[in-house]
Amino acid sequence: MLQPDSVEQTAGMPTKMNSSSIRRLNRVRVFHALRQNPGSSQRELGRLTGLDKATVSVVVAQLQQEGLIERMASTSVRRVGRPETALTIAASAGVLVGARLEPKTIRMVATTLAGEILAHMQIDGSRNVRRAITLLQKGIQELLTQAGENREVRGIGVGIPGMMNREGRLVLAPNLGWRNSEIRPMLEENLNAPVYVDNDTNAASVAECLFGICRTVRNFIFITGHSGVGGGLVLDGRLYRGTGGFAGEVGHLSIVPGGRACGCGKRGCLETYVSEASILARLEELGRTLPDIWAVAEAQGDPKVRQVLDEVGTHLGFALSHLVNLMNPELIVLGGNLAVIAQLLMPTLKRALAEHTLRPLLEDVRLEVSPLGADAVPMGGIALALEGFLTSSVVMAEERSQRRG
Amino acid sequence: MLQPDSVEQTAGMPTKMNSSSIRRLNRVRVFHALRQNPGSSQRELGRLTGLDKATVSVVVAQLQQEGLIERMASTSVRRVGRPETALTIAASAGVLVGARLEPKTIRMVATTLAGEILAHMQIDGSRNVRRAITLLQKGIQELLTQAGENREVRGIGVGIPGMMNREGRLVLAPNLGWRNSEIRPMLEENLNAPVYVDNDTNAASVAECLFGICRTVRNFIFITGHSGVGGGLVLDGRLYRGTGGFAGEVGHLSIVPGGRACGCGKRGCLETYVSEASILARLEELGRTLPDIWAVAEAQGDPKVRQVLDEVGTHLGFALSHLVNLMNPELIVLGGNLAVIAQLLMPTLKRALAEHTLRPLLEDVRLEVSPLGADAVPMGGIALALEGFLTSSVVMAEERSQRRG
Repeated sequence: MLQPDSVEQTAGMPTKMNSSSIRRLNRVRVFHALRQNPGSSQRELGRLTGLDKATVSVVVAQLQQEGLIERMASTSVRRVGRPETALTIAASAGVLVGARLEPKTIRMVATTLAGEILAHMQIDGSRNVRRAITLLQKGIQELLTQAGENREVRGIGVGIPGMMNREGRLVLAPNLGWRNSEIRPMLEENLNAPVYVDNDTNAASVAECLFGICRTVRNFIFITGHSGVGGGLVLDGRLYRGTGGFAGEVGHLSIVPGGRACGCGKRGCLETYVSEASILARLEELGRTLPDIWAVAEAQGDPKVRQVLDEVGTHLGFALSHLVNLMNPELIVLGGNLAVIAQLLMPTLKRALAEHTLRPLLEDVRLEVSPLGADAVPMGGIALALEGFLTSSVVMAEERSQRRG
Repeated sequence: MLQPDSVEQTAGMPTKMNSSSIRRLNRVRVFHALRQNPGSSQRELGRLTGLDKATVSVVVAQLQQEGLIERMASTSVRRVGRPETALTIAASAGVLVGARLEPKTIRMVATTLAGEILAHMQIDGSRNVRRAITLLQKGIQELLTQAGENREVRGIGVGIPGMMNREGRLVLAPNLGWRNSEIRPMLEENLNAPVYVDNDTNAASVAECLFGICRTVRNFIFITGHSGVGGGLVLDGRLYRGTGGFAGEVGHLSIVPGGRACGCGKRGCLETYVSEASILARLEELGRTLPDIWAVAEAQGDPKVRQVLDEVGTHLGFALSHLVNLMNPELIVLGGNLAVIAQLLMPTLKRALAEHTLRPLLEDVRLEVSPLGADAVPMGGIALALEGFLTSSVVMAEERSQRRG
């Protein structure tokens, strides 16, 4: 029987891991093990990461030297035998900021390097890219003031509802009206810290891996709805990005032949039926004017609202059947604004999913609502910042050691 | 920016590579490098695999000892400097057999360990599992006789149009009518060699990686049609199997709401429109009785045939849009019986694909017809046998060395 490991080989293009990428991986691995298990000793980190004693020792020494991790006040964590040093992420090491840029809103969160939330805030957004950056800049200042924070900002991660290519260029953000934008350098010029940018749904998917309900799941799909609808695919434990970096365009699956016109130029796309704006527009058609998705959830007793929620559940369940038939995931997580109405969609969603999915694949999958809620994308920004900051500092460390050598 | 490598880490479940799995990978890697580059020296194998000199040396010594690789007659492959030994897969090492089991046919191929075809043959199949095994057993004897072959059969790989779970159990093969079958032990009992079994499309996808057009492609989707329609997903250079091992059920995407009844119990599945049997049935409805897909291809000038091929192209293009929107592949390969009519489907297929796919993802993907043709699944069997044989012999080698130690 073929094993996934060896198939990577048979595909003829093994991922060549050089010593630098292995060092980077080991560093990230040790950091996250300590983040999720504060107070661990080096020995415990070895067990948690599967790395040998010498490797853990080198990584720990380097992280300590950079002030990212430190000894805890209580030093002995072992009941018997020689006392061991309990380690933890250094509180003094600085903070991270995560943000979600949407046409009408900017949502931000500040955390410690360990991902503990210090403050969050939501402000008005803008479709004008310069204006959006200015708003974000002021927002971050206010956020940090509110948190009483004067530690160094080690990184800012921003999730954007758009298609990013493999080089990190924003190709198209239809709902923001941005196209071919060098958004990262523009942000970095205005924000006084390293900036990391990614598609909002990809960012949120990684946040679910790091901070949410998917920590131990190898195959899951994250579905989120804000201005549009996006999907993040974590397959065999890795975020799958596709050839151009555009994988997971769940919102643009054609689910109604010749259906509603979509901003992308096609017809019948899923997001023209299940995005917040589409739901509000459909209710408007039926004579119900509601301001946002929270109002929809509150008005669930209204028969017209019930009718629209049933339609949304049916369309979403049908679209998810394609994902399940193709990807045989263990878990589908509904996040973003979809999380607000997720429980109300379940009856028709589950019916449509069951109707269109092969039985053994249906039995493998479960549906959950994101526990990160509206903070999923901002926390995805934290994940981006954490990752960027951990991997860029290894590059700097390598450059230092090369200069020395 | 997140890197795929580090994301595997952040998903919290790093793939722990122990020394045994690394040895297995190195062994497979060296063997395939030599298979694709016969006459290579150890030094060249090092360059091709990215492995260091000492590792290559150990693997080569082991493979030589087992009689799998040997020195070539001409020993010097280097123009200047010290002469180097040219290596090659040993012709004496034995042969492999690959087979495809279908309700009406069994197709077989015999190759060298290097994958060079010695003979192929197609015989009648059976829906009765015992009868099918007997037919296969006799067929293999005849195949080897025809090839004038008396070298040892090192492995037999069989592709089956069914759902295999992660443990290699056949859960369901609707078109064969087999369910919950321990097919591998049954085959091994009757065939005098180690047997490896997998879903036919997964096997064919790996064959495309090893022997076909996908040797240098990291993200591709293999679509095949025989009695049903299946999909193999190679993502980030690995065959993606999903949680239960059922990923890639392209044939059961619902593409016509309330459409034709499918053998799976659902309605409107893709395969009820584009499998060989469905195409022949649709032609029958229109008053054209044709025996098989080759006859359909020959009758392409007939307006009724043209109409049905246009319908098939439209349905297939629509279904492929889901795959492209979700997975952003670089390449889609049409194989099996679909390969026979692929060029005839292209006009409507491409139109439907373009109509339902987001532009940047459409631009990333190209469509090709499998060069392996009807031998794709049997060659997939060869890939299974090769893989199984290479990895099981490392286990044996380890057991030997443990007994010694």
